[in-house]
Amino acid sequence: MEYRFSNKVSGLQASAIREILKYTVDPNVISFAAGNPAPEAFPARRIAEISDELLRDDPILALQYSITEGYGPLRDFLKGWMTEKGCFHSEFDDLIVTSGGQQANELSCKVLLNEGDTLLCESPSFIGSLNAFRSYNVNLKGIEMDDDGINLEKLEAALKEDNNVRVLYLIPNFQNPTGRTMSLAKRKAVYELACRYNFIILEDDPYGELRFAGENIPAIKSLDTEGRVIYSSTFSKLISPGFRTGFVSAPAPIIQKIIVCKQVSDVHSNIWAQVVSHRFMTTIDREAHFSRLRGIYKEKAELMCSYINSGFSDKITYIKPEGGLFIWCTLPDECDMNAFCTRAVKDYKIAVVPGNSFSIAENEKSSSFRLNYSTPTNDQIKKGMEILAAMTREILD
Amino acid sequence: MEYRFSNKVSGLQASAIREILKYTVDPNVISFAAGNPAPEAFPARRIAEISDELLRDDPILALQYSITEGYGPLRDFLKGWMTEKGCFHSEFDDLIVTSGGQQANELSCKVLLNEGDTLLCESPSFIGSLNAFRSYNVNLKGIEMDDDGINLEKLEAALKEDNNVRVLYLIPNFQNPTGRTMSLAKRKAVYELACRYNFIILEDDPYGELRFAGENIPAIKSLDTEGRVIYSSTFSKLISPGFRTGFVSAPAPIIQKIIVCKQVSDVHSNIWAQVVSHRFMTTIDREAHFSRLRGIYKEKAELMCSYINSGFSDKITYIKPEGGLFIWCTLPDECDMNAFCTRAVKDYKIAVVPGNSFSIAENEKSSSFRLNYSTPTNDQIKKGMEILAAMTREILD
Repeated sequence: MEYRFSNKVSGLQASAIREILKYTVDPNVISFAAGNPAPEAFPARRIAEISDELLRDDPILALQYSITEGYGPLRDFLKGWMTEKGCFHSEFDDLIVTSGGQQANELSCKVLLNEGDTLLCESPSFIGSLNAFRSYNVNLKGIEMDDDGINLEKLEAALKEDNNVRVLYLIPNFQNPTGRTMSLAKRKAVYELACRYNFIILEDDPYGELRFAGENIPAIKSLDTEGRVIYSSTFSKLISPGFRTGFVSAPAPIIQKIIVCKQVSDVHSNIWAQVVSHRFMTTIDREAHFSRLRGIYKEKAELMCSYINSGFSDKITYIKPEGGLFIWCTLPDECDMNAFCTRAVKDYKIAVVPGNSFSIAENEKSSSFRLNYSTPTNDQIKKGMEILAAMTREILD
Repeated sequence: MEYRFSNKVSGLQASAIREILKYTVDPNVISFAAGNPAPEAFPARRIAEISDELLRDDPILALQYSITEGYGPLRDFLKGWMTEKGCFHSEFDDLIVTSGGQQANELSCKVLLNEGDTLLCESPSFIGSLNAFRSYNVNLKGIEMDDDGINLEKLEAALKEDNNVRVLYLIPNFQNPTGRTMSLAKRKAVYELACRYNFIILEDDPYGELRFAGENIPAIKSLDTEGRVIYSSTFSKLISPGFRTGFVSAPAPIIQKIIVCKQVSDVHSNIWAQVVSHRFMTTIDREAHFSRLRGIYKEKAELMCSYINSGFSDKITYIKPEGGLFIWCTLPDECDMNAFCTRAVKDYKIAVVPGNSFSIAENEKSSSFRLNYSTPTNDQIKKGMEILAAMTREILD
């Protein structure tokens, strides 16, 4: 029979990255296309210890239904930790545990936007969030970025042109896919625009702790005096993405609506993972753990960059990351980016993600591609980057 | 500041049951208001064994990102198991693992219905699903039930009256809240109406395995020749609700859209719970495990019923359950149900759920209340039912 789907989803496609990832089932393909944390970054032994103890001593806690807001002690820990970071204002904020950062962004959109309302975001941006917004049929507009984050003039022009802008979605730290970090001056300016034009900022910060170079920059949420910033983050890159444990700190009335929407979505997040996360975060030396993670990613990022510096055609430019998981490379204008990426995976067995996967508007052109250094082993980085470098010289020089 | 929420959620309230559950934090209150599985039903030791082995031998499998469709071996097991039960048709169905049965129902709604489209359901029905449907602003219409399930004449009248009916939502086995089971004749008739009036049936079956009296009745999905039944179920009552592991068997084009919507909602369900569920279901004696669960609920149900039979005022009628978790009691017309429930919890410290919590239309009157026997201990059932029985006689006789 013929199925009729809702307008919201009828045009929705599975992530284009999945198309590229299909090639990566070929064991001969080296993939720089994923976005997974490094397996060696998982604190697997400590998780096993905590889990064993929990399931032995308190199995019902880990197995019974729980409340939508999240495991109480985990919420309390997160409120304290986020207060330290300036990302929880006890006067007006509340906090909910979500099923990963993805759910935080999806529910924020469901709660705040009607079909047709405008959501602005950086262009390019994270495809998972873009598709979440698309699944509510919002009017998605991308704003160009400079090296230090979203272009303020273009942002303000968009605000002047459209008086139905409800939300600005940003990944200020080590943005996916560009790896760019927004400067403090821009964070302040963006917050001021939010107050002036009366919109909500959705600040997505999955990689904030993974800074391995440069100085920490305060979150936009830390500037929030009026209660117009929703801050979301996740344990996916700090403990385990398989846990699906994230959280949102936001003004209490917004959290109230997110709770109601989460209740009808999955009742609550897996409670075993919440309890294990809580016990992990409160019993380890957090700074030592984060520092170990930063070390892993720094080494991988520097290794990958060294091959770009020494081996890539000079016609390719790239953004050197100070944290996060990705390197954004840009081809010269005359080069067909899609053909480049297809040839890389088909002929050279190297998978990278074509930049237009992260485009906001359909058919938007891109001459960039995204490299990921967190998932491959160092040996795969060495071998794969040598091949990719040779390919760039062959094609471009 | 003033927040503006989307039309979808601005009228959405947290489950009314939560209001009653607030009283149950008082340790003196005996609660028959929840819907949790009995803690003694959890196979806690076996789960701990499987989990220990998994986290020791294959931690990355349990901790890394996984695919949206669900853990491959679990999907394969579920396809086989559902095929045995007639609930998976390999010619046209596909299957996805969801974050509990709740997500299965929510995503089915998101995928199939536009705002304003009509969804029919039994009246009364499960509040979690109703609120999920409400969160997409669909036109929700309840159809009265008979003892053997939805009233067919009223269903057909509603179909004739409204040519925008897209989905009929049903809980055919031990319905929540009424405990009623739909007869085979009605299941056939409902499926025939679906073909004739061209709508999709969303068959929610969280309790199907928990039949402790009477004969099994084939699922509506087993009658599905045209590909118009979405069948959802969950491990919440069979292994653990804290896992948040459910699944949907449905025509492949519908599953494709559900995959895309799940991807933007939570990427995938907690993978540790998926692997543990798979290993549990494939290594235990399933029939022996289900039989143990049925024994637990049979004992509790019979215990609760014995107090109704011997102690409740004769003016209260009730539906004797053949499975599931609930007993539906109805007060005489002259009695104010809300006052009864409030008095029960405030003066007698017994929490029950007022029937209008499950109403479809706002301000719909109900003279019923729901009792749950799965969550309280046998001692709590004895003590609480004695008090409640005395109260009914005092008020009504």
